[in-house]
Amino acid sequence: MRKLKDIKPLELKDDVLYVINQLKLPHELVWEKLETLADYEKAIKDMIVRGAPLIGIVGAYGFYTGIKEGIDYIQVYERLKQTRPTAVNLFWALDRMKSIYEKYGNDLNLLLKEAKRIEVEDYHANRSIGGYGEVLIPKKANILTHCNTGALATAGWGTALGIIRSAFENDKDITVYVDETRPYLQGSRLTAWELLREGIPHYIITDSSAGFLMKKGMIDVIVVGADRITLNGDVANKIGTYSLSILAKHHNIPFYVAAPSSSLDFNLESGDEIPIEERNEDEVKNCHCCKVAPQQSHALNYSFDITPADNITAIITEKGIIEKPNKEKILKFFGRKLS
Amino acid sequence: MRKLKDIKPLELKDDVLYVINQLKLPHELVWEKLETLADYEKAIKDMIVRGAPLIGIVGAYGFYTGIKEGIDYIQVYERLKQTRPTAVNLFWALDRMKSIYEKYGNDLNLLLKEAKRIEVEDYHANRSIGGYGEVLIPKKANILTHCNTGALATAGWGTALGIIRSAFENDKDITVYVDETRPYLQGSRLTAWELLREGIPHYIITDSSAGFLMKKGMIDVIVVGADRITLNGDVANKIGTYSLSILAKHHNIPFYVAAPSSSLDFNLESGDEIPIEERNEDEVKNCHCCKVAPQQSHALNYSFDITPADNITAIITEKGIIEKPNKEKILKFFGRKLS
Repeated sequence: MRKLKDIKPLELKDDVLYVINQLKLPHELVWEKLETLADYEKAIKDMIVRGAPLIGIVGAYGFYTGIKEGIDYIQVYERLKQTRPTAVNLFWALDRMKSIYEKYGNDLNLLLKEAKRIEVEDYHANRSIGGYGEVLIPKKANILTHCNTGALATAGWGTALGIIRSAFENDKDITVYVDETRPYLQGSRLTAWELLREGIPHYIITDSSAGFLMKKGMIDVIVVGADRITLNGDVANKIGTYSLSILAKHHNIPFYVAAPSSSLDFNLESGDEIPIEERNEDEVKNCHCCKVAPQQSHALNYSFDITPADNITAIITEKGIIEKPNKEKILKFFGRKLS
Repeated sequence: MRKLKDIKPLELKDDVLYVINQLKLPHELVWEKLETLADYEKAIKDMIVRGAPLIGIVGAYGFYTGIKEGIDYIQVYERLKQTRPTAVNLFWALDRMKSIYEKYGNDLNLLLKEAKRIEVEDYHANRSIGGYGEVLIPKKANILTHCNTGALATAGWGTALGIIRSAFENDKDITVYVDETRPYLQGSRLTAWELLREGIPHYIITDSSAGFLMKKGMIDVIVVGADRITLNGDVANKIGTYSLSILAKHHNIPFYVAAPSSSLDFNLESGDEIPIEERNEDEVKNCHCCKVAPQQSHALNYSFDITPADNITAIITEKGIIEKPNKEKILKFFGRKLS
């Protein structure tokens, strides 16, 4: 077994949350102090923190902080809910916090405990996803991944990148091909940074190279994360995931989605119902720190896309693996009844 | 008929070639003076000029310049040939120049005339490609394109972007979705700049968005260029073209390749034989003007990929359209015999 370092992207000190500013990685490791509800809103909106599970956890601490500030709980809930629309983990975490508040009232201790519980549960879910998922990775494998689904996107370890961590920890001989993931460059900035710290061999590639590498036989397996999974097994995830899934199918390469069960949205039948965040066009017109496109040109910036269940080999959760997901299997897996 | 502006990316003045420095667009329009063979080598290698037809033309002027400098013609030929490996137009143009030299000797007038002829022929080829191709564009259409295949990639007008120009000139109601085309960002820097000058409506998108837009029904037709076409109809073109062709096929969207016949390589049976340029990893690790990835991480930077003939609806040349290309049709089209 190899020894891994892991990373924690958030830390509670003296009742104040500190988070790694993910806009500044990989060049600087800067911790930001989140002291007010407004700080939390900004951190999530501006993607100082990002990653579906992490914004859920940070949202929970934000709820606690808003109540501590004396702001009405419905307002706290709504303000945090409006920061980003696609990942369901945020709403799931806020719902948990709200129901504690509604049940026990303004008990700050209980609220903080619940936020901590959400954080710890996420970490353990990831270790479990890693355990289930790494079994699917061959002893020697070239793995393609998209965006950042690592420690930085979660309470630690990661989901899809957690599976990669677990495979490496388990002495597998892996090389990771990292989609740079425009426009925010989560792949080349964050995933590469995590892999480098762990000593996991990797190559960064442009997003549009992935198909050609598949054709050349250079990719054995693809693992990605999820921002929301609907009842029928459709997956909302970082823009580009859908294309990868079509390319994987064409080249007969297993396509795995890794996510904690908090990413499941039991209220939505299919991916068509998921709101897709459209972010500012400047994220596309600029590249990281510099202006690229003519300023009068316009850009379209869908932040996520929907991958149909049909293209997914299996969904890997902390509770186990759902192969060829569909509504019946998902309901059965989570012990719910078909409505 | 709308009136278009067009652009000329090169100009001969007092026996010296000036070229637009495409590394500085869209922010600055800077003309570089190419006075020596070494200037030409650098301009092509460093992508101050790029685009398969344009590097052919610039290569021809470079040959003339090398001879004028008194350098041995074989050395001139070899030095220019080694600047970039994938586009065949460069070799085609250099072969034309070399055969003039071998036939008529050190006649600078004749050599300059031949270079000018290569340039003028390319411009007319593009107008013709535009004429043939624009017929395939619906009256109202959302067109996806990749990289830059416009005036800046040629002697003027362009190949795939030339078809878009011709469709717009012909009063068609078009909107162009421009892949930004990492790593060099030819789409957001060069294609958007050309479209803006012409007043053609367009949106820049990240390369990985293309598949999702196809799924949403937002793309009616795809047109791309080619760096080399082999006998069986396989096409080498900017990295990302292959993925687009698979996605187009999956979504039943016409996928057109536009190129002058100088892009045909009658010496190669299939795309497997085309050398794929691998450029410096820093082009991927950096983004335009700034560093992105951790400096110790590695990147893979294939500059081109191969699209199999099977994925191509038609190849559009200055001589007409080759539908569902294959070896038999290509040889027949160019009046050559099946060997």
